[in-house]
Amino acid sequence: MYDRMQTITKGEIELLHNASMNILKNTGVTFNEPEALELFRQNGFKVEGKTVYFEEEKLLKAVEDAPSRFKIEARSPEKSLYIGEDDWVFVPTYGAPFIMDKNGNQRPGTMEDYANICKLVHTSEHINMNGFKHIEPSNVVEGTAYLEMLFANITLCDKPFMGSTDTIQSAKDTMEMIAIAFGGRETIKDKVVTIGLINPLSPLQFAEEMAGSIIEYARNGQALVILNMIMGGTSGPVSLPGLFALMNAEILAGLTLAQIVNPGTPVIYGTTSCPTNMQTGAATIGSPETWIINSVTTQMARYYKLPCRTGGSLTDSHVPDAQALAEGALSLSTSVRNGANFILHSCGMMGTFIGNNLEKWIIDEELCGMIRRMLTPIDITMESINVDSIKKVGIGGNYLMDPDTVKNCRTAFYKTSLYNKKDHSSWKKTGAKTIDEIASEQLVKRLAEYERPEIDPEVEIALADFITHRKQNM
Amino acid sequence: MYDRMQTITKGEIELLHNASMNILKNTGVTFNEPEALELFRQNGFKVEGKTVYFEEEKLLKAVEDAPSRFKIEARSPEKSLYIGEDDWVFVPTYGAPFIMDKNGNQRPGTMEDYANICKLVHTSEHINMNGFKHIEPSNVVEGTAYLEMLFANITLCDKPFMGSTDTIQSAKDTMEMIAIAFGGRETIKDKVVTIGLINPLSPLQFAEEMAGSIIEYARNGQALVILNMIMGGTSGPVSLPGLFALMNAEILAGLTLAQIVNPGTPVIYGTTSCPTNMQTGAATIGSPETWIINSVTTQMARYYKLPCRTGGSLTDSHVPDAQALAEGALSLSTSVRNGANFILHSCGMMGTFIGNNLEKWIIDEELCGMIRRMLTPIDITMESINVDSIKKVGIGGNYLMDPDTVKNCRTAFYKTSLYNKKDHSSWKKTGAKTIDEIASEQLVKRLAEYERPEIDPEVEIALADFITHRKQNM
Repeated sequence: MYDRMQTITKGEIELLHNASMNILKNTGVTFNEPEALELFRQNGFKVEGKTVYFEEEKLLKAVEDAPSRFKIEARSPEKSLYIGEDDWVFVPTYGAPFIMDKNGNQRPGTMEDYANICKLVHTSEHINMNGFKHIEPSNVVEGTAYLEMLFANITLCDKPFMGSTDTIQSAKDTMEMIAIAFGGRETIKDKVVTIGLINPLSPLQFAEEMAGSIIEYARNGQALVILNMIMGGTSGPVSLPGLFALMNAEILAGLTLAQIVNPGTPVIYGTTSCPTNMQTGAATIGSPETWIINSVTTQMARYYKLPCRTGGSLTDSHVPDAQALAEGALSLSTSVRNGANFILHSCGMMGTFIGNNLEKWIIDEELCGMIRRMLTPIDITMESINVDSIKKVGIGGNYLMDPDTVKNCRTAFYKTSLYNKKDHSSWKKTGAKTIDEIASEQLVKRLAEYERPEIDPEVEIALADFITHRKQNM
Repeated sequence: MYDRMQTITKGEIELLHNASMNILKNTGVTFNEPEALELFRQNGFKVEGKTVYFEEEKLLKAVEDAPSRFKIEARSPEKSLYIGEDDWVFVPTYGAPFIMDKNGNQRPGTMEDYANICKLVHTSEHINMNGFKHIEPSNVVEGTAYLEMLFANITLCDKPFMGSTDTIQSAKDTMEMIAIAFGGRETIKDKVVTIGLINPLSPLQFAEEMAGSIIEYARNGQALVILNMIMGGTSGPVSLPGLFALMNAEILAGLTLAQIVNPGTPVIYGTTSCPTNMQTGAATIGSPETWIINSVTTQMARYYKLPCRTGGSLTDSHVPDAQALAEGALSLSTSVRNGANFILHSCGMMGTFIGNNLEKWIIDEELCGMIRRMLTPIDITMESINVDSIKKVGIGGNYLMDPDTVKNCRTAFYKTSLYNKKDHSSWKKTGAKTIDEIASEQLVKRLAEYERPEIDPEVEIALADFITHRKQNM
């Protein structure tokens, strides 16, 4: 199909690939973690101090070992998912410090807020996987909050979920907890049940906890999403092509470590890079350049035959207003249309990653459903055209009583109870509500009606015991 | 590029084309206008009563005569535009009865509202053509309001504009007024300076004023946009493929009339078809099916090598809230990405075509700018990658003082003064405004700063005289 979005040619991708190889070979990447450096050394990579240098051959072997698609299993088997190639999943937020109300007021989040988001994921028609660290819970001990969040992820929702990579210990504990929930240490090595988020420190560094988490997840057969947030003009080049070369080098360096540890580890190729606002020095995630980055990143991931993660409903607005969804819809739809497979921040994120807003959460959620419908192919055949019915209704007729209409009118079109479809007069009569007001009402009802999914009581007790024990031994 | 949006195959388009031909040949299309029927008869078409039947050969000849791209000239030559193939224009609203405030209150529009919209078009960085009937002015005589609106279009803004097709007389008067403004009756026959909107009455009818306006515009060498608003389930099939066959038949019937009158008349192939809300019977223009229709319509127009018009920022919301821009952004971006050339309702329209809202107008306008930027290709070369600079900044460095950053930081990224890019604390300190509040403020300032473009005083007097004379003789 004709498309005004730029197609990156194979030649252009090769230019970027070669530039990345040049950087990886000559400048290298720093891994601030002794075991990672030792693993690189053992596998024949040149290591100087904390810096690792990459030869193209070894890197391409690693890319080849990583699968283009994998299955992630859920506690309820019918909710297991595939990620990669034609399959994609909508995942809500990760890493917002605050919870925000619909007027843009921030407050520290609590475990109750965290639980509410898990409940929304569980009851969602459109969001098929849970994220992690939706907010930073302020009413539990900071250093062990990840244990409570993992417990909520496992018990309040039966969909696949992301794990913790906050520290190497948290990655290890994620492995312990999934082992309890999914049948033991040996069982999980053969099936993916969680994904860890790895965020290189741009330019060209991996912090201790990131490198260590790559090793821990890969060793246990769990998946990784490696994504950088390069800010063009500060932590990366102001020129987008330069930014792509740097971005690609960092992601491939992390992927290589995962494949050294355990060839075949699923690695999602990702970025949430964006321009720097040159007046303020802040990131600008709701911008046309971000959507271009989404588009180019999906094309590069496909070149390497890797699953891809690009931006969800990203915005720089602090309220669920017209701006939030204008920016969010462009980011989300570009990512999904162009072939991303792991759509992180599909819903709820606002204010340049600063907060989670539950009204925006359910407005975005419905948008995910509408985008999925938009991308579902329709069947154009003699039968679906049904020219005889058109001729029968004829000139000036009405299709309301046409047999096709009577038969299909309930299912033919996408339905929403959140987005207003009332005419002006009925809308006025029913309170003239904006969508964020309707969202607030629906939120209260949905959380009130939530039912906790079943879980084997022994598993739940074992998870709780593990947490108690771990907290006593930190 | 990989794209999850459905590509309609040539075989599928041919199925639709053949179904349309079957309808046109056997059911026919009613034209409620004697001259149109006479023209069809003279050109060898079968006419029975008011119904015209079409043979494929004659229809394909008409399609072939219509250009794939044309130039529309502006009063200020540097603002002339091309429409078709790779070129597209953003046009604001057409046909909203009311003006709406940002809280969703409707009121009848006035000529002052109309003038304000013309002023916004004139001062717009992103909207390159003016529409018509942005609202229905309630403070001038209804039957001659089109004269005042045409006068505003010509004098308050120097960009190309749409004309009137409300009645045959209004189409004739549009020709008179453009002749005055553009150098006489003979001159305008050789250059396109306006476009008339033709709306078939679905299914399969053309009202008197529509058929008559086609003749009037074509005869004077002016362009037409033929677009239907088929409501799936009431005025057309509930099945989208059936809707496409009907839509295509109606558009091609109107196009054929234009080509009979004057072969080579530019005709834009368009639709704003949408589902019927089966609970209320109302149109639903902010829906995934509308975006699918946008996508398929652009692909069909390309098959016939015709310029295309599909939806702009369309919504069923009555306020410029998150819903309005979620729906609007999906509609607008699908149309532009997939290749539409004439993006009508690019900005301002709300409440399922019921009203024009000026806050939404400028929020949409900026979105048009961002979409154009998103679709502007970037140059991926050794120079733009500049791997040496990346190696020089190296591991853990900062690009802020990199020569590329210093040189390009002012122009590298899209800039907006409307969409919030402030961090939470500065946003709070400056009043914690939502985008519609900022839009209100910018609107006042922009209208206050407006300067009327120059016009030859003799032309302006002649236009005013024409209007006075016409009003006296209605």
